[in-house]
Amino acid sequence: MRYQRMVLAARPRGAVQVGNFRLETVEARALEDGEVLVRNEWLSLDPYMRGRMSEAKSYAVPQALDETMIGATAGYVVASRDAHFAVGDAVTGMLGWAEMGIAAGDALRKVDTARVALSAYLGVAGMPGVTAWYGLHEIMRPRAGETIVVSAAAGAVGSVVGQLAKRLGCRAVGIAGGPEKCRYVVEELGFDACVDYKAGNLKADLKAATPDGVDGVFENVGGVIFDTTLTRMNAFGRVALCGLIAGYNGDPQPLHNLKSILLNRLTVRGFIITEHPEVWPAALADLEPLVAAGQLKYRESIADGLASAPAALVGLLSGANFGKQLVHLP
Amino acid sequence: MRYQRMVLAARPRGAVQVGNFRLETVEARALEDGEVLVRNEWLSLDPYMRGRMSEAKSYAVPQALDETMIGATAGYVVASRDAHFAVGDAVTGMLGWAEMGIAAGDALRKVDTARVALSAYLGVAGMPGVTAWYGLHEIMRPRAGETIVVSAAAGAVGSVVGQLAKRLGCRAVGIAGGPEKCRYVVEELGFDACVDYKAGNLKADLKAATPDGVDGVFENVGGVIFDTTLTRMNAFGRVALCGLIAGYNGDPQPLHNLKSILLNRLTVRGFIITEHPEVWPAALADLEPLVAAGQLKYRESIADGLASAPAALVGLLSGANFGKQLVHLP
Repeated sequence: MRYQRMVLAARPRGAVQVGNFRLETVEARALEDGEVLVRNEWLSLDPYMRGRMSEAKSYAVPQALDETMIGATAGYVVASRDAHFAVGDAVTGMLGWAEMGIAAGDALRKVDTARVALSAYLGVAGMPGVTAWYGLHEIMRPRAGETIVVSAAAGAVGSVVGQLAKRLGCRAVGIAGGPEKCRYVVEELGFDACVDYKAGNLKADLKAATPDGVDGVFENVGGVIFDTTLTRMNAFGRVALCGLIAGYNGDPQPLHNLKSILLNRLTVRGFIITEHPEVWPAALADLEPLVAAGQLKYRESIADGLASAPAALVGLLSGANFGKQLVHLP
Repeated sequence: MRYQRMVLAARPRGAVQVGNFRLETVEARALEDGEVLVRNEWLSLDPYMRGRMSEAKSYAVPQALDETMIGATAGYVVASRDAHFAVGDAVTGMLGWAEMGIAAGDALRKVDTARVALSAYLGVAGMPGVTAWYGLHEIMRPRAGETIVVSAAAGAVGSVVGQLAKRLGCRAVGIAGGPEKCRYVVEELGFDACVDYKAGNLKADLKAATPDGVDGVFENVGGVIFDTTLTRMNAFGRVALCGLIAGYNGDPQPLHNLKSILLNRLTVRGFIITEHPEVWPAALADLEPLVAAGQLKYRESIADGLASAPAALVGLLSGANFGKQLVHLP
């Protein structure tokens, strides 16, 4: 059985280019005992992928050149030599940018598409949702009445952070790029306020949106956005450092307000959700019923077809997406 | 009874100047019930004083102009209307830059000069020692075999951090200014290595001194010293952020390696030891016997007479001191 895949052809210098990838047609090998063949319907695009494309020291090994680009996937079983999986089962896995893939059964997760749409298991009911849950509950730990700030608030992770914080009784303030995203964050997601960092008044606007200061930060962006947020911190604030996408292409992003960490006795903690597998069951047990009940809203940016994945990743890294960025495979 | 005191005459613009202070002669008022009159023998000079001299937002109210400059003191009771204190008792308190002072008895701490020298209750057996203890035991929490880095390693706080870390079985690496301080840190205090940041090879020298990377940091300085230390961090490292003296005079100190906090999943926590009174008894119970037994070494830079205090503070803020900076009053 032949299928298409996208491989990393060259490492980016600075910004990712569409030409860093190459489409190939390959032949699926025969399954061995315990393996499952999956046809992917959805590919997840996520900011962490930028780090894997470089050889610089990071928390994970770099993506190999000329191999299928890594990534989470959702699809259906088409052949199985694992008794736990039958043809037609809906599963998520890490099969990468490809129309099909083979995985050991224990590297796949069976999901229930009667409760939650298959694509949502790559977003609000998947890794991004658990990321939001962990940063909020394990690092920020806000009390009712506290103010939390979330950057990339219209994105897959940020949108969940703010909605969960509202359920805890917090004031949730988003930062996003452009009036359309900000309107969505407030009117659809229910944040109390959203600051448009592209409007040119970030400092004054954030001050106005956080009249009681800031107790918790979920940081996805870094750069001037994080620096400005640090000027609003209350004593003993907590920062969950999840991403620094502003600097992923190598542009220098000096931080000027380190002193806020000392003056306000902040705790800043970087984290990678895949290193905390112990929280996934509890997080998903919280998230899935909320998604199923429509109480946790989400939005998806969908690129069409495997060939569109590179351009969609370039867009994601510059904030062109709106909500969870996916690639749909026909 | 008349005595001299030093008041803050003007707030500094940039670096502290001797002329920011003014010496005055005042009359001691009569004691009220519960109060104690103390003749100060030692004044403690500490980096936090720089922050109090400015009006900028900080964790404490600014030092008032034309009032006695704040500070910890050690001395002897000369009159008492508190039954817990007798004339001749050795006490520490916060009587400020003055030859004498009046305090409520419950704001004084009686100390035992038979075990530990009076001046040491302002250093290794006082606030700086407890600061070191807290950052090490409550924030860095190193295991035996881990590497910890301490900036301002020859100072009152840093010298204790490294010695306590050695007792836990850690590799202790100091950063200090000049070969004399570095020699002292290694040969007298027993650190495994000390990097002279003035030698011009900070990055390469720190790398050589931390062959297994860095698991814990006790940061007193900030600026290029902290930035460079961040390049050496191991996964899940902890940073106790105690001071940022490099920037206290207002020079910009941009941080370039914020991304290390994310990539290495670090925890960075700022703290102020006076906000954790609950740990003082346990910390002092650890520290005092070690000091009494000579197992915790310390060094003092002693300025002579109240009039010398401003110049001594200027020196402290530029690293001229060697160990704990004190002022001795005759």
